[in-house]
Amino acid sequence: LDYNRIREHQHLRYNPLRDTWVLVSAHRMKRPWSGQVEKEEEDQVPQHDPNNPLCPGNTRANGEVNPDYNNTFVFENDFPALQPNAPDPGYNQHPLFQSKAARGVCKVMCFHPWSDVTLPLMTLPDIIKVIDKWAELMVDLGSTYPWVQIFENKGAMMGCSNPHPHCQVWASNFLPNEATLSDRCQREYLKTHGEPLLLQYAKMEAERQERVVVQNADWLAVVPYWATWPFQTLLLPRRHVQRLTNLTAQEREGLASIMKRLLTKYDNLFQISFPYSMGWHGAPTGPYLKEDQFHWQLHAHYYPPLLRSAGVRKFMVGYEMLAQEQRDLTPEQAAERLRNLPEEHYKTIET
Amino acid sequence: LDYNRIREHQHLRYNPLRDTWVLVSAHRMKRPWSGQVEKEEEDQVPQHDPNNPLCPGNTRANGEVNPDYNNTFVFENDFPALQPNAPDPGYNQHPLFQSKAARGVCKVMCFHPWSDVTLPLMTLPDIIKVIDKWAELMVDLGSTYPWVQIFENKGAMMGCSNPHPHCQVWASNFLPNEATLSDRCQREYLKTHGEPLLLQYAKMEAERQERVVVQNADWLAVVPYWATWPFQTLLLPRRHVQRLTNLTAQEREGLASIMKRLLTKYDNLFQISFPYSMGWHGAPTGPYLKEDQFHWQLHAHYYPPLLRSAGVRKFMVGYEMLAQEQRDLTPEQAAERLRNLPEEHYKTIET
Ligand SMILES: O=P(O)(O)O[C@H]1O[C@H](CO)[C@@H](O)[C@H](O)[C@H]1O
Ligand SMILES: O=P(O)(O)O[C@H]1O[C@H](CO)[C@@H](O)[C@H](O)[C@H]1O
Repeated sequence: LDYNRIREHQHLRYNPLRDTWVLVSAHRMKRPWSGQVEKEEEDQVPQHDPNNPLCPGNTRANGEVNPDYNNTFVFENDFPALQPNAPDPGYNQHPLFQSKAARGVCKVMCFHPWSDVTLPLMTLPDIIKVIDKWAELMVDLGSTYPWVQIFENKGAMMGCSNPHPHCQVWASNFLPNEATLSDRCQREYLKTHGEPLLLQYAKMEAERQERVVVQNADWLAVVPYWATWPFQTLLLPRRHVQRLTNLTAQEREGLASIMKRLLTKYDNLFQISFPYSMGWHGAPTGPYLKEDQFHWQLHAHYYPPLLRSAGVRKFMVGYEMLAQEQRDLTPEQAAERLRNLPEEHYKTIET
Repeated sequence: LDYNRIREHQHLRYNPLRDTWVLVSAHRMKRPWSGQVEKEEEDQVPQHDPNNPLCPGNTRANGEVNPDYNNTFVFENDFPALQPNAPDPGYNQHPLFQSKAARGVCKVMCFHPWSDVTLPLMTLPDIIKVIDKWAELMVDLGSTYPWVQIFENKGAMMGCSNPHPHCQVWASNFLPNEATLSDRCQREYLKTHGEPLLLQYAKMEAERQERVVVQNADWLAVVPYWATWPFQTLLLPRRHVQRLTNLTAQEREGLASIMKRLLTKYDNLFQISFPYSMGWHGAPTGPYLKEDQFHWQLHAHYYPPLLRSAGVRKFMVGYEMLAQEQRDLTPEQAAERLRNLPEEHYKTIET
């Protein structure tokens, strides 16, 4: 690959996890921006807000009172998109009008009792508690549900409506589109190439280094070769691990550490609390626990929207929605910028 | 289908054009919203802005001076994502690191000399000129390029950086992801069911009426059964038409009229200039012009982001990006609301 050439000219790259292509037009960063600029100042978030339904000791919409929790706290979403007992929509199985029942459960998980911290500002032991709770929820909900989606929407720009550090866990009686697609791609890759896709990918990226942002003995965070969002990353274990529940104690420690380092770099990039949506993908659960899922490798996707500064995001709109995703800098350029950032959080340096 | 049931409970619906499912959780509209609110006031746009590179007579970034145009005006994007002569990225064809050359051209098309109008506020003859120019560009660029994507990003919320009424036309030497997917779905549908997918769909929706927003002799605008965006619509000809270039003069008149009616309803919904991304999909061009494309039916997709009001949008974030798209009202509810809106534009009523 001629990196001088691809820095100056558009080309396509293949995403083997989704069987799609992305248009990389690095020269587009040169265009001026006169469009929407996001509100830059961070609202001052108090450590405890008596009106925030996520804080310890407060009353939620349904009248329940939160315990005085010390680390994580999980409760059922008061306005869930998935409920356990939804009836069948009725039968109307014309090929153009197909519907199916959807059942599930939506949980909210607070990371910490304080509203004014985020994962990169938390201590390693507190981040490990988050990871342990994720694994616990995977065991509980995964015992019956085929897919348990852990995800975090961070920042108002990503539709997050509560500043308290938290994520969500939606479990469903169906495999969602993205899970089905990723399952198919990983399965076919194993069949054709004899090795799990992401296990091979992690090894090759560890050798090449040009897209690595942070790494340690058990984990690797890269801007994937096929990244669509400007500073998108993929967090991968080095060992073949199918689910969050299979991580050893040492791997959980390593995960806490690499998350803190990656998210600190994210915050340092534009000196703001970096918005993103992130989530975990691992082998399906419920009935799939009994099946062979060797093709699966656990991983987390980080999809951050910012492009140029704290105020200017990438819009995935017209061409992207109707034709194909397009990015304005190469993944190698993004990785290099992130890699070169300090690992101390700008907020802790300032004080 | 039991419409009382589906209004109260979540279920899945199948999108036959993309072979994916959408989660419909109508009861979620009840949840309170304390997240990001968009700037509601519309900036006052002058009819002519001497500094706007899209206005007649002004100078653009590359030093060219716009003509004193009277209806449409097309020029090459000064910061194109696709250029005609990009070199091959070089060969690196490991299955996990695949790249390909991408070549093409990006054009900008102004709809009208004035900055303070939008399509629904334009006269029918002026809208017909836009349609004729679209068809002309399809002929020109489609003579060599396999895919010519016409799309409009409208509103700052949709990444539009210039208030002057305009769309973009990106032609490429490859079929983008969405084109490939839609082509496959339509091709398989014809093979299995003996009729083009969207031709059959338009007939069935015309009979059922429950998702129809506006219709005339030649066209139908529906909130599709599988809509993901809250007020998404699909604009379809009633006759089997494969490409914009195949529309008769009467069909172009009918299209101008239905676009004006649909977009007026959109603006009237929240009494603002309704943001959206829209675009045309039709049979591929270039080398495909010589092939049988009977499975294709021309159509336009409108993807508007607003959900509750001029200020509150739908965020397609964590669960949607990592698992599956989710909507908060049924397509039937959305269609009913749009259908019941007046067809006179709120701005012309006020005066
Ligand atoms: O070309 P524009 O209007 O400057 O840019 C807009 O549309 C493009 C095509 O959908 C997107 O890639 C950009 O992110 C968006 O801001
Ligand atoms: O559940 P929340 O945080 O209220 O809502 C947010 O995340 C959901 C899941 O990604 C999205 O469906 C909503 O559009 C978004 O605003």
